[in-house]
Amino acid sequence: MNGAESLVRTLVAGGVDVCFANPGTSEMHFVAALDRVDGMRCVLGLAETVVTGAADGYARMTGRPASTLLHLGPGLANGLSNMHNAGRARSPMVNIVGDHATYHRNYDAPLTSDIEGAARPFSHWVKTSPSARTVAADGAAAVAAAMTPPGQIATLILPADTAWNEADGIAKLPPVPGRAPVGSAAIAEAVRILRLKEPTLLLLGGLAVRSAGLELAARIAAATGAQLLAQTSNPRIERGAGRVSVERVPFPVDQALAALKEFRHVILIGAKAPVAFFAYPNKPSVLTPENCAIHTLARVEEDVLHALAWLADEVGAAKTAVATEALAPPPVPTGEITLQKLGQALGALLPEHAIVVDEAVTSGRSFFPLTRNAPPHDWMQNMGGSIGLGLPLGTGAAVACPDRKVICLQADGSAMYSLQGMWTQAREGLDVTIVLFNNKSYAILRNELANVGARNPGRKALDMLDLGRPDIDWLDLARGMGVPGQRATSMEEFAAAFGRGVASPGPYMVEVML
Amino acid sequence: MNGAESLVRTLVAGGVDVCFANPGTSEMHFVAALDRVDGMRCVLGLAETVVTGAADGYARMTGRPASTLLHLGPGLANGLSNMHNAGRARSPMVNIVGDHATYHRNYDAPLTSDIEGAARPFSHWVKTSPSARTVAADGAAAVAAAMTPPGQIATLILPADTAWNEADGIAKLPPVPGRAPVGSAAIAEAVRILRLKEPTLLLLGGLAVRSAGLELAARIAAATGAQLLAQTSNPRIERGAGRVSVERVPFPVDQALAALKEFRHVILIGAKAPVAFFAYPNKPSVLTPENCAIHTLARVEEDVLHALAWLADEVGAAKTAVATEALAPPPVPTGEITLQKLGQALGALLPEHAIVVDEAVTSGRSFFPLTRNAPPHDWMQNMGGSIGLGLPLGTGAAVACPDRKVICLQADGSAMYSLQGMWTQAREGLDVTIVLFNNKSYAILRNELANVGARNPGRKALDMLDLGRPDIDWLDLARGMGVPGQRATSMEEFAAAFGRGVASPGPYMVEVML
Repeated sequence: MNGAESLVRTLVAGGVDVCFANPGTSEMHFVAALDRVDGMRCVLGLAETVVTGAADGYARMTGRPASTLLHLGPGLANGLSNMHNAGRARSPMVNIVGDHATYHRNYDAPLTSDIEGAARPFSHWVKTSPSARTVAADGAAAVAAAMTPPGQIATLILPADTAWNEADGIAKLPPVPGRAPVGSAAIAEAVRILRLKEPTLLLLGGLAVRSAGLELAARIAAATGAQLLAQTSNPRIERGAGRVSVERVPFPVDQALAALKEFRHVILIGAKAPVAFFAYPNKPSVLTPENCAIHTLARVEEDVLHALAWLADEVGAAKTAVATEALAPPPVPTGEITLQKLGQALGALLPEHAIVVDEAVTSGRSFFPLTRNAPPHDWMQNMGGSIGLGLPLGTGAAVACPDRKVICLQADGSAMYSLQGMWTQAREGLDVTIVLFNNKSYAILRNELANVGARNPGRKALDMLDLGRPDIDWLDLARGMGVPGQRATSMEEFAAAFGRGVASPGPYMVEVML
Repeated sequence: MNGAESLVRTLVAGGVDVCFANPGTSEMHFVAALDRVDGMRCVLGLAETVVTGAADGYARMTGRPASTLLHLGPGLANGLSNMHNAGRARSPMVNIVGDHATYHRNYDAPLTSDIEGAARPFSHWVKTSPSARTVAADGAAAVAAAMTPPGQIATLILPADTAWNEADGIAKLPPVPGRAPVGSAAIAEAVRILRLKEPTLLLLGGLAVRSAGLELAARIAAATGAQLLAQTSNPRIERGAGRVSVERVPFPVDQALAALKEFRHVILIGAKAPVAFFAYPNKPSVLTPENCAIHTLARVEEDVLHALAWLADEVGAAKTAVATEALAPPPVPTGEITLQKLGQALGALLPEHAIVVDEAVTSGRSFFPLTRNAPPHDWMQNMGGSIGLGLPLGTGAAVACPDRKVICLQADGSAMYSLQGMWTQAREGLDVTIVLFNNKSYAILRNELANVGARNPGRKALDMLDLGRPDIDWLDLARGMGVPGQRATSMEEFAAAFGRGVASPGPYMVEVML
């Protein structure tokens, strides 16, 4: 077998069973090997940002890495922004990036570039395989690196001749470290803080916002008087009826400062200390007050659930009863569309076990609280702040969970960066309903222009925030890629169109005119 | 004035009068400064690859850098592939990349990344400005770096506080070096080779394929018996009626080897020694025969035209008559669509002074020879091999030359990487006719799969090369972004639709069904 086949077989043996791909000439042997190897589903994306964003969504839902297949430095470059987002979500991912044959790189052919240099700022692990005989072992090392808790971006560069030359066979996965247990000192310190009975926040992230973690955290809070908040953004919150609800640190700096101002202690549990998303003139970067101490119970890569269970024991909360949300969908609103009513409608209409991808940005600020009494569902957010993740993330989540409905809550400005994701959803017949919020602007930037102190913007500045002239027709764009849809200009139309989307087994767009 | 305004004023004073932009929060002061400064046209792109590709097209037509405005590391990353192409085209470009405020970077907020690290593989010059008082001087240095022959990619990183803090005023452009003259030794060596009367190729690139360079090269060839070829890809060839025609080194390796096999000498004139675009098993990387010597008359950054004029003098060719193409458009073909007939139709219908952007890939192989007798026009190609350049490049060329018609010859697979460029064309009312070749596949990869030795591909492999299921409806996609169009299923329909596009003052799509 050649190097490409040894790599594909190694990936499959290592539990990597999906490849999101946008290949070119230098990856043709890898593509050809897919025919000869069972067990690897191959999903084509027509832009690399779709490929890497889909791998993120797949990883968030399965806990396992997908592979990606990218074409030399520029193909990698096109996927880097969603690799950034995936890295911040701590999603495991194995990128295979083709390169020129080793002997061809010296000739500086047009596509030559410093691929390792481009990969490094957005990867935790980078290697160029030197020969066909090393490809399998390097691939196994990449999988192990990706799976190292809490999940890493591993990028393996595959020169074309290492794919087509003869290899030695497949390689076994090296041992993957488990999540490191939290030490007794961290537990003891958390117990000490909680016993002070000073205003204390348990700030949750990572696995602490899955349902088991939330339940443990809620017990500790109930037994100690501490309060709970989740990070502003989270890769995947398990919520809805039967689950413990948690609010999040607000995104706007002033609201975040207000939400955190009473606390004297923050205990981080799979979370990072809260800082502003951006700096603003005359506003602080650190969101906790100066007299608030930051403590760490468990870092995101540590065994967060074990730490929570241990801490619950120590504070006598192992059996404390906690309140979970009732199934109490609000009534479906009617009349003119407002953001508040849209949130309420989502709370009413969200199907059971939906996977909600939230890239609604300014349109979606009310949706999270208004959906807490919906049937149980997952809520996924953009962790790296590079917009254009939603459609790819929903694509990958749908590939991972064919028995669940994916709901992409999608702002229009963000959607434009990766609209090609719709085509992959259509090709694969993925069960995705896209709710596209068409407000014809980068609405967040209107606020931000004022927030950074740039007052009274003129026409030239406002034109940079405006998606009108021409207005984008999202139903045309969806139809052009094989995704049917319907426009909603009233709440009644929204409910009907959303219902049609939910009833459809494949992708469907609901364009909401705001 | 603040740092942002000092930078915008410095750019304008340095001759940079267009900014292709996709800004975010950290760039809001730059955006606000645009209102206060005259002389900078600001053009919004809805994906960063449109922004950088447009800057390339602008630079190729004006010889001057445009600025781009990009949002932190991921925004830069999304623009890198077309920066790669621009760098290979030696287009001058000034990228302004916003970053977090200097004091905010330590907090590792979600969008934090190693921006310099990401920029470096695709930039010739990279700097992070440390304070508002240095921004103007750093901006001036970036412009000078960009304009250093033959053109460079300069990336200036602008932390948000260096934009909003008080600056000292604008900065003057440092001296920009001119093109270095070629020394007498290079001339003498070329003369010596040409006098040997052995089979000699003058291989042309850069300024040597503009009309003045081609005329000088043709005189030298006529006087010495040498032959002329242009590089496989060229940033901008001036051609058509009244100009000297030149063929190009073919892209397929076997054809290139055949075209070059008789030569014993290649004299490089603004060109690089010909190498294969990709390596293939059992095919050489170097396209010239082993007994062929490579000589350099002028490197691409040197004064190529002066070297040609000098050499023409030395070989007594200063007044040699050369043949230029007649205006002899072929008849417009009818009936079923074939690629050959499409090339002929373009030769017949190309408007005078058109700017042709050729990203037709496999569909376009016949178009170049069949348009040599069209009215005078420019022909632009992808220099870096990262597909997805065509629509952005045409956008920038149209901004640069509002009095000329831009014709984008665009393959469907390539178009999907940067289809957002159509929206910018619609917003700016750019005079672009897009001829979209819809063959429903990455057709080139079908050949490449065989070329690399991967025979008898199965369904999984072929699916990765196939853009069907669902078929993409390009008229829907164009309409969704405000670009009207028409479909052509016969040569008669093509001629009618192309005529409508040429007659239209704004963007128009002709979708050619293959």
